[in-house]
Amino acid sequence: MAKEILLNAFNMNCVGHINHGLWTHPRDRSSDYNRLDYWTSLAATLERGLFDGLFLADIVGVYDVYQQSVDLTLRESIQLPVNDPLMLVSAMAAVTKGLGFGVTVNVNAEEPYIFARRLSTLDHLTDGRIGWNIVTGYLDSAARAVGQAALGEHDTRYDRADECLDLLYALWEGSWDEDAVRRDRAARIYADPARVRKIRHEGTYFKAEGYHLSEPSRQRTPVLYQAGTSGRGRQFASRHAECVFISSPDTLVARTASRAIRQGAVEAGREAEDVRVFAGITVVVDRTEKAAREKFEDYARHASTEAGLAHFSAGTGIDFSQYDLDEAIAYGKGNFVQTSVDLARERGWTKRNILSGMPLGGRYPLIVGDPSQVADALETWIVEGEVDGFNLARTVVPESYEDFIDFVIPVLQERGRYKTAYGAGSLRNRLFGQGDRLPDRHPVGSFRRGNQAAE
Amino acid sequence: MAKEILLNAFNMNCVGHINHGLWTHPRDRSSDYNRLDYWTSLAATLERGLFDGLFLADIVGVYDVYQQSVDLTLRESIQLPVNDPLMLVSAMAAVTKGLGFGVTVNVNAEEPYIFARRLSTLDHLTDGRIGWNIVTGYLDSAARAVGQAALGEHDTRYDRADECLDLLYALWEGSWDEDAVRRDRAARIYADPARVRKIRHEGTYFKAEGYHLSEPSRQRTPVLYQAGTSGRGRQFASRHAECVFISSPDTLVARTASRAIRQGAVEAGREAEDVRVFAGITVVVDRTEKAAREKFEDYARHASTEAGLAHFSAGTGIDFSQYDLDEAIAYGKGNFVQTSVDLARERGWTKRNILSGMPLGGRYPLIVGDPSQVADALETWIVEGEVDGFNLARTVVPESYEDFIDFVIPVLQERGRYKTAYGAGSLRNRLFGQGDRLPDRHPVGSFRRGNQAAE
Repeated sequence: MAKEILLNAFNMNCVGHINHGLWTHPRDRSSDYNRLDYWTSLAATLERGLFDGLFLADIVGVYDVYQQSVDLTLRESIQLPVNDPLMLVSAMAAVTKGLGFGVTVNVNAEEPYIFARRLSTLDHLTDGRIGWNIVTGYLDSAARAVGQAALGEHDTRYDRADECLDLLYALWEGSWDEDAVRRDRAARIYADPARVRKIRHEGTYFKAEGYHLSEPSRQRTPVLYQAGTSGRGRQFASRHAECVFISSPDTLVARTASRAIRQGAVEAGREAEDVRVFAGITVVVDRTEKAAREKFEDYARHASTEAGLAHFSAGTGIDFSQYDLDEAIAYGKGNFVQTSVDLARERGWTKRNILSGMPLGGRYPLIVGDPSQVADALETWIVEGEVDGFNLARTVVPESYEDFIDFVIPVLQERGRYKTAYGAGSLRNRLFGQGDRLPDRHPVGSFRRGNQAAE
Repeated sequence: MAKEILLNAFNMNCVGHINHGLWTHPRDRSSDYNRLDYWTSLAATLERGLFDGLFLADIVGVYDVYQQSVDLTLRESIQLPVNDPLMLVSAMAAVTKGLGFGVTVNVNAEEPYIFARRLSTLDHLTDGRIGWNIVTGYLDSAARAVGQAALGEHDTRYDRADECLDLLYALWEGSWDEDAVRRDRAARIYADPARVRKIRHEGTYFKAEGYHLSEPSRQRTPVLYQAGTSGRGRQFASRHAECVFISSPDTLVARTASRAIRQGAVEAGREAEDVRVFAGITVVVDRTEKAAREKFEDYARHASTEAGLAHFSAGTGIDFSQYDLDEAIAYGKGNFVQTSVDLARERGWTKRNILSGMPLGGRYPLIVGDPSQVADALETWIVEGEVDGFNLARTVVPESYEDFIDFVIPVLQERGRYKTAYGAGSLRNRLFGQGDRLPDRHPVGSFRRGNQAAE
């Protein structure tokens, strides 16, 4: 039987996310991102399309590499302004039953003890539909904003994140036993003190001593997403991540990345099937190929390739405004190394070919076609790219999600490539089919009772 | 014309809040606090009652003073487990139009740059209905949980909070001009870079340099709540607070507190009418006095005065378990000094008289009676206590809110003491009637453009 394709809507609590400039399209509603009904209606739409999750990106800091300024960033709203994604979840959870939420939070911008409770609260309120996309931050502007002179060394940031996760796992998995909560009115025992214990952590970066403030939620540890593609980031993902998000220009690169990720998990004592790989992708679809092409041309007239370039400048640390169109670009500092960048470096690289690769202002692989053509392309990514699913970037919203649901999903369902109803249980169980909790072979296992000295 | 009474529902994202032990009552639903529909239906109920706000308390840390243990705290769920209150807001905002949300967040547990965005996001999503109850923390257990050896000195905590607010004000009020956001599709200008500027802060406790990540929300600065009653806390409130929450045993103490608060605001360069004072109160009401008395007796049989005592131990730092019933209690360390405690100290104090003052397991003034009797008592508090309104503690939920709405509100409305519809605008405008933003005479004024050097 064909493997079912997993699907996240890729979005962000801001105007311009991946495909830049499309906020100027007359039908685009992304500048309503400050209205609750924009999000609750999006959630209802995604649930209609049986999306596994809404993946919410985030950035703390601003894009100020291109032209060494935020001017274009503000004019084209390139992820600025940007609001807190966590604040959206409960409203969307209240209008859905099956949709998961993968929310990006920078592990270096949160106090772990408080943050542990924050995600436990969301896991409770969503009844086990919360995921966390772990990022460590890559912008100097973010470091300055929170009072650090400059961004910590890349590897150090991951060391700190590793230790932070250990502390979080201890709180999520080790503080309350399964049977700690009794809710026994007659006996006047809400929780049994013998089954709740203090966590004590003293490491290089963190020191903490306390009870986890939340009782156990359905998943305890949220589904863990990660997108690091550097050596150290890949190592971090191998240890922790359940869902890995990749940005690959083609299926060949995707396959290489996907295999490396699964191999890394195995080397970290986990199983290849413990990880789901999602490729970022943009789709423009309509009833016919001709209609899809026309829609694409219409979108392209509103897109801003310059805004896409400015976004890419921030991601690579290279100010592309300093280059002529056909000048060779030297690969510079850039600590947010995408696989596609590595590839481009080998090929030789000019601003002209970067720009030509993002007609809608975004650098993700773009599929334009009728429903069958799109479904074919997605199947190719799954089979040849060896990925499990997609993070579907938005173009003009909400119509790009609606088009995908109305045109593509039915074809995938006919081909046995997409579910026809949500599965049971938590987000984790729907993704992996092995229950609501992480398996013991994941690092969380060592923080569970019996494996640790109790107080 | 009689002054209209302001009304907040007082609640917390936990089981036992103020009136302890009532979770064991067969009709009580507080142990459903982890379900979203518990909160959305509460919000709808409060909106039906035209409550000005839902005031959500919070605590980071646990109550471990009584018997030097958390055992009773866990058994009676005395604010443990306790979940993040911020995560509840968007779901409740989505089902209401007029209800405000006053959410407690410990200023010393958040990174200011990130926190500024978090509250701006909620002000956007609620369209100007967000308030922030500023606390500085009083529990050693909280300090240890976040890796601090012990709680900072009381006055130092307020100094740090003062500086934090200056930084937050700069971000909320000073980074984006009123007309910065254009959303001009034709001109391709979402925001005008000339009208957005970096904030630079370098102080004793914080250093930050960056643009506020959120565009201006309706209120910009959320409505500021505070409950500090110590000398330094009162000074802090005088400078910043718009709504002050007091816990007074009687109207005489309330009047003294209320006058001191307004006087403090005037001395800080504000006006007496810039502050609204809310008294904590518990009400048990029914159609007749007899029915109300019976309801009270029924509730009292399920309440836990010992749990109330344990809560009070944490608040005062005194382990009351070490005292005999009639032994004189020496007033000890206790850095969370309630006005009522000061008063009691002068009187001489035993465990017996503390216990007798909280038949429902909570120390707030208790009003039991028919609708007219309750309305009379509330009017007395307003007139003699010189307070503006109440934080209504819950007993058995949701019926205690429903009873108040069904029995008391209509009587207050008949007497011209309660609104019959929500006013227009933001939470701030409904409370003060002077627009959505803080007046310039508040400290925020100095962070507004024109009063500060622009970049």
